[in-house]
Amino acid sequence: MNDNLIYYDIKDVYNVKLHGRIDRSMDVIPLLSNGQGIELNSTGSELWVDIEADYDFMEPWVAIEINGDMVSRFMIDRGEHTICLYRGIQSGRTTRIKFYRELQAMSEDPKTRLVIKGLHTDGTFMAPPYYERRLEFIGDSITSGEGTYGAPEDEDWTAYCMSYSRTYINLTCKELNAESHVISQGGWGIFSGWDNDRRHVIRKYYEQQCGLAFGEENKKYGADKPYDFASWNPDAVIINLGTNDASAFNEASFTDPDSGDVWKLRRNEDGSIVPEDEKRIIKAAIDLIKMIRKDNPSSHIVWMYGMLGYDLSLVISDAINRYKAESHDNNIQYIMLPAINKDTVGARQHPGYRAHEIAARILTDYLKSVFV
Amino acid sequence: MNDNLIYYDIKDVYNVKLHGRIDRSMDVIPLLSNGQGIELNSTGSELWVDIEADYDFMEPWVAIEINGDMVSRFMIDRGEHTICLYRGIQSGRTTRIKFYRELQAMSEDPKTRLVIKGLHTDGTFMAPPYYERRLEFIGDSITSGEGTYGAPEDEDWTAYCMSYSRTYINLTCKELNAESHVISQGGWGIFSGWDNDRRHVIRKYYEQQCGLAFGEENKKYGADKPYDFASWNPDAVIINLGTNDASAFNEASFTDPDSGDVWKLRRNEDGSIVPEDEKRIIKAAIDLIKMIRKDNPSSHIVWMYGMLGYDLSLVISDAINRYKAESHDNNIQYIMLPAINKDTVGARQHPGYRAHEIAARILTDYLKSVFV
Amino acid sequence: MNDNLIYYDIKDVYNVKLHGRIDRSMDVIPLLSNGQGIELNSTGSELWVDIEADYDFMEPWVAIEINGDMVSRFMIDRGEHTICLYRGIQSGRTTRIKFYRELQAMSEDPKTRLVIKGLHTDGTFMAPPYYERRLEFIGDSITSGEGTYGAPEDEDWTAYCMSYSRTYINLTCKELNAESHVISQGGWGIFSGWDNDRRHVIRKYYEQQCGLAFGEENKKYGADKPYDFASWNPDAVIINLGTNDASAFNEASFTDPDSGDVWKLRRNEDGSIVPEDEKRIIKAAIDLIKMIRKDNPSSHIVWMYGMLGYDLSLVISDAINRYKAESHDNNIQYIMLPAINKDTVGARQHPGYRAHEIAARILTDYLKSVFV
Amino acid sequence: MNDNLIYYDIKDVYNVKLHGRIDRSMDVIPLLSNGQGIELNSTGSELWVDIEADYDFMEPWVAIEINGDMVSRFMIDRGEHTICLYRGIQSGRTTRIKFYRELQAMSEDPKTRLVIKGLHTDGTFMAPPYYERRLEFIGDSITSGEGTYGAPEDEDWTAYCMSYSRTYINLTCKELNAESHVISQGGWGIFSGWDNDRRHVIRKYYEQQCGLAFGEENKKYGADKPYDFASWNPDAVIINLGTNDASAFNEASFTDPDSGDVWKLRRNEDGSIVPEDEKRIIKAAIDLIKMIRKDNPSSHIVWMYGMLGYDLSLVISDAINRYKAESHDNNIQYIMLPAINKDTVGARQHPGYRAHEIAARILTDYLKSVFV
Repeated sequence: MNDNLIYYDIKDVYNVKLHGRIDRSMDVIPLLSNGQGIELNSTGSELWVDIEADYDFMEPWVAIEINGDMVSRFMIDRGEHTICLYRGIQSGRTTRIKFYRELQAMSEDPKTRLVIKGLHTDGTFMAPPYYERRLEFIGDSITSGEGTYGAPEDEDWTAYCMSYSRTYINLTCKELNAESHVISQGGWGIFSGWDNDRRHVIRKYYEQQCGLAFGEENKKYGADKPYDFASWNPDAVIINLGTNDASAFNEASFTDPDSGDVWKLRRNEDGSIVPEDEKRIIKAAIDLIKMIRKDNPSSHIVWMYGMLGYDLSLVISDAINRYKAESHDNNIQYIMLPAINKDTVGARQHPGYRAHEIAARILTDYLKSVFV
Repeated sequence: MNDNLIYYDIKDVYNVKLHGRIDRSMDVIPLLSNGQGIELNSTGSELWVDIEADYDFMEPWVAIEINGDMVSRFMIDRGEHTICLYRGIQSGRTTRIKFYRELQAMSEDPKTRLVIKGLHTDGTFMAPPYYERRLEFIGDSITSGEGTYGAPEDEDWTAYCMSYSRTYINLTCKELNAESHVISQGGWGIFSGWDNDRRHVIRKYYEQQCGLAFGEENKKYGADKPYDFASWNPDAVIINLGTNDASAFNEASFTDPDSGDVWKLRRNEDGSIVPEDEKRIIKAAIDLIKMIRKDNPSSHIVWMYGMLGYDLSLVISDAINRYKAESHDNNIQYIMLPAINKDTVGARQHPGYRAHEIAARILTDYLKSVFV
Repeated sequence: MNDNLIYYDIKDVYNVKLHGRIDRSMDVIPLLSNGQGIELNSTGSELWVDIEADYDFMEPWVAIEINGDMVSRFMIDRGEHTICLYRGIQSGRTTRIKFYRELQAMSEDPKTRLVIKGLHTDGTFMAPPYYERRLEFIGDSITSGEGTYGAPEDEDWTAYCMSYSRTYINLTCKELNAESHVISQGGWGIFSGWDNDRRHVIRKYYEQQCGLAFGEENKKYGADKPYDFASWNPDAVIINLGTNDASAFNEASFTDPDSGDVWKLRRNEDGSIVPEDEKRIIKAAIDLIKMIRKDNPSSHIVWMYGMLGYDLSLVISDAINRYKAESHDNNIQYIMLPAINKDTVGARQHPGYRAHEIAARILTDYLKSVFV
Repeated sequence: MNDNLIYYDIKDVYNVKLHGRIDRSMDVIPLLSNGQGIELNSTGSELWVDIEADYDFMEPWVAIEINGDMVSRFMIDRGEHTICLYRGIQSGRTTRIKFYRELQAMSEDPKTRLVIKGLHTDGTFMAPPYYERRLEFIGDSITSGEGTYGAPEDEDWTAYCMSYSRTYINLTCKELNAESHVISQGGWGIFSGWDNDRRHVIRKYYEQQCGLAFGEENKKYGADKPYDFASWNPDAVIINLGTNDASAFNEASFTDPDSGDVWKLRRNEDGSIVPEDEKRIIKAAIDLIKMIRKDNPSSHIVWMYGMLGYDLSLVISDAINRYKAESHDNNIQYIMLPAINKDTVGARQHPGYRAHEIAARILTDYLKSVFV
């Protein structure tokens, strides 16, 4: 860092574009979830950021985009760090710089934490970039980018395998000049998590600022505060859920550690889904849609599904049809995405970068047809 | 044609593989529909075919594949012709030769007709190729390959724009080593044709040998005879309908020339579909599925939709869900295909070859997962 | 053919665009070589062409493009034929129609012949399309499109395996809005044919109208007349030769049937080329370039090579360097093309369509940089 | 970092695979040049590396590959750091980990420096991976990966724009299971740098351990020591030079700061190259080839050129031909690569990742044909 850089508390930087559901009322900017970050039009020859991080077993990862191209991606260790966002640019030239979190909110590691405290630069910050569209994404491991990095043979559930940078979200947003909010959690579902853990449903945390960031520490950053839906009105809300509910039918039962209740989504002997359990998923899907609609009265809602198999496609369609019949709300659609194959699979049997490119192409084309 | 070739009546050629719903009880082999054709393992240095054709305004087109690669494609004029299927091959070498119709059954041109009468060769015919799978396809202009040939600016509805060779059918069958039966008609639908003509629904002709080949002449070839479903048991039946029903909502009303009835599928003022009309489509879709199931008790049924827009996706899903709830038949699935975009559109605003390649990839992957 | 069509002798059709070195002084238009054809802007609802053809063992193949998209491709049998170029178009609409020969001039089958005699239409012919560039191509089987059609396992040397439609020539010309002249012959070379037959060098026939169309019959069409180079000034002459000279080093010696001379291009024991033979190729290459330069004083000359291996790349470069040093002519360049691999190979171990697409991309980019 | 990790001096780690010309005689492992790095088969649940770095204006960048997939890439600031190479893997599972330098040796920033001192892990190191082939690459900014990262509009010459990870080197080596040595420097040439600075020729430093890493500090790591060519015998040496010599003809003259000599490569008025200057380049190219041959008697030598234009292609060919004629050495070849176009350009008008993929495909195919 050059000696002539000036330090700015992040709370004093007016011209910063915040990505994600971020509360500006604090002195610091917490990045609690994937896709959350800051973006600046900076005129300095260099720019550094002061951050603080912590974790128990899932370390936060971040990425840096310069003028829209990702040039760096790395983990952040515990403690305070001053990190270079760029350097070596001719002073006075405006550089668009985006620094964002790759890792999803870590419900399983309540210590995982990443906050931005200040910036060092020899330049000034111009008006930040303007985005034409606002898109909200709700999903599971697919939306958390699991498998977009890593080798096919990687087996462990690691932080580096997840990303925002290579997801269909990032690709779609670039094509549509859109900004995103993301609420996603690997293994979670509509009615049940992948392992029949019924606590793991996104709906329970959707209306909090960043409810999936568990733990006392994240509460200090307002993670569990009610989110102010009036503050940001998305053009579309994209739901990408159902994959884990489908898995649960093939997994063992789950014993709730608190209540001791044992639970499992069931198949009949012929392999078909037990109708009663199908109804549970349908009801949960309808409840989720109703909540999203209540919170986002004018947004187009699109449910997309299929990258890891089509098992629950008709069940989800049924939920949407029932919701439409009941509500007379037609501002909702359903899109199926192609299942991955050997050419598009990434790490850990999840969609790879190529699969996300295909999904982004389909979603982008669809949203363009909606936004005309 | 060399002098030393020997002529065989087609009825006397035992080692011929017939593609499509073809009645071998006649002296000739009529090719009444797209994808219908003959295939031979021929040892001759050359092979010619005697055919007879007719049409009023839509001339039949055919294609020739040698060892699986299409090398020739052309129209057939009225009258009798002797056409070279190949020549110049070393005598004794076995050549796999397929000669098939590109043009759909032409309901609007009852004179369109193409029959195979005999073969000329200096060789013999070995056992024909074996196919592992049997697939039946039911569709509209997409399945008739409209737009797979022709320039983007082509506007007229011409025979050359349609094909079997470049459709997702041909591509899927090659990947799965499958043979196909095709029942498709451009402009037709589930409940209504694109122009609100309610006579134009595939279901009415599905159970005939080749009911979409209208006219007295085609009757002679058994076009309207009941089809013997026991004769060929498909592993899967693929339905690709709904695009024209969706169009009908945006078109003027249609006056039935016979009854004088005026008919139109209707939208509400807010653009949504009139529920009563939606129910009509759902009922028609269920009736179609029931008929297919009755005729093909053990076949997997998959409905695919979306290449020209997703408008009726949830309506079709609803029909399938209602059918499943009523019948407890779970051997049915629904797949959405990506809508075309500027890179995948072909002639006449229809899916181009690239769009069919994408559809074939998705369908092939899906069927592989079913056939395991 | 409708009754109301009017017949025009081709000699009376003024608004016809001729492709290739074609002599308009005759009553008919002979298509003696690959890429030769006619192009029309026709307002009729249909258009038919009268042709006459002959062959001994290599039948002529043709293709039809409508508005720039190839829709048909087929062989022509011996005798007189009336062939439909298109039909079913709304009368009065202008359709751009191109009818051209796929098969190279057949030096080995002097009976191969194809002539256009007249046209039938119910419309008129508007001014033909204008091309911005003129390109001349000189080559061997690669330039004759051998392998661009046919299955990988095809072994025989057949007419259907060759094309103009799928060659780098056609693709390059479409991108540059250029018309082409082609002088190519499978198996021929700079100094020697693939089998050490020294008679098979393009240079000997380059200055004739269409010298590679052998035989008395073709002479009637002026095939062996001196070509009038002043009549058509190419922006660039592309030479694609050397592949067969390279092969000759690996083949047996050839005994000239006329002189009885035995000849072979030789390798040393270590596999390297005998310097004396290398010099022979260099001299022949320089002689070819000199002839092309004399005949086309202002054209850019580019030699491209490599699709079937790089063996003679440095030898060809040496020839060009020597020519440049001697002539001080700098309007010449050399381009290497990528060798085929398992993804780009076509029939008969020759470049497939994908290989020609790659070659066209490289040549097009290069010519754009020259034509700025 | 967990408390239970054990520290190992890097000098004590036997099972480490070194990439690049690296001297193991020191206590530390200096990474002085692009592609230099360490690779380990590690059984620990985590692995950290102790490094030390410095720079004046060009900071070193590094990348981490886990099981062959790059998951992280970032700059290293001045000072000592402990960096996590991976964590969160199940203990006992063998993870293949590669940590390497992205940035070229920085002749213009003699302070640029990166050294590895030790490793921390809770596991052991198994036998490192085995590579079948050894490849040496000699080049300029293309080989230093300039433009493989960064946006098209990036203008400054920055460290993040350069890489080893996205170059044709890395891609080719992965396909051939090869390891690489790289000697490359942006702006340098055969006879002259891009700006007519004649000091900037690779040949002057080729025989040193890592001569392009200037400065007293790097000397301590043996940068200017004679390289022991007997220690590593490459299967092929790939030269990718000439682009900057071509540029120099279009740039202003250069005044040598030491001697005061003014120098410029010259064009004639008609744009052609002054023959005397061409001869200078040819001589320098021959001298380079001779040196490489002397140092690598049995290696195949291939010169590849063209990604940024074909201007000197024939000049380089001429040099190779003259070398061959003089030396009778036939174990050398020349390959042209396709020039970049709008779809393949990266940052700073240099080849992008897509261009490197194309180059790698061509080089890989070629080397496979040599290595049979």
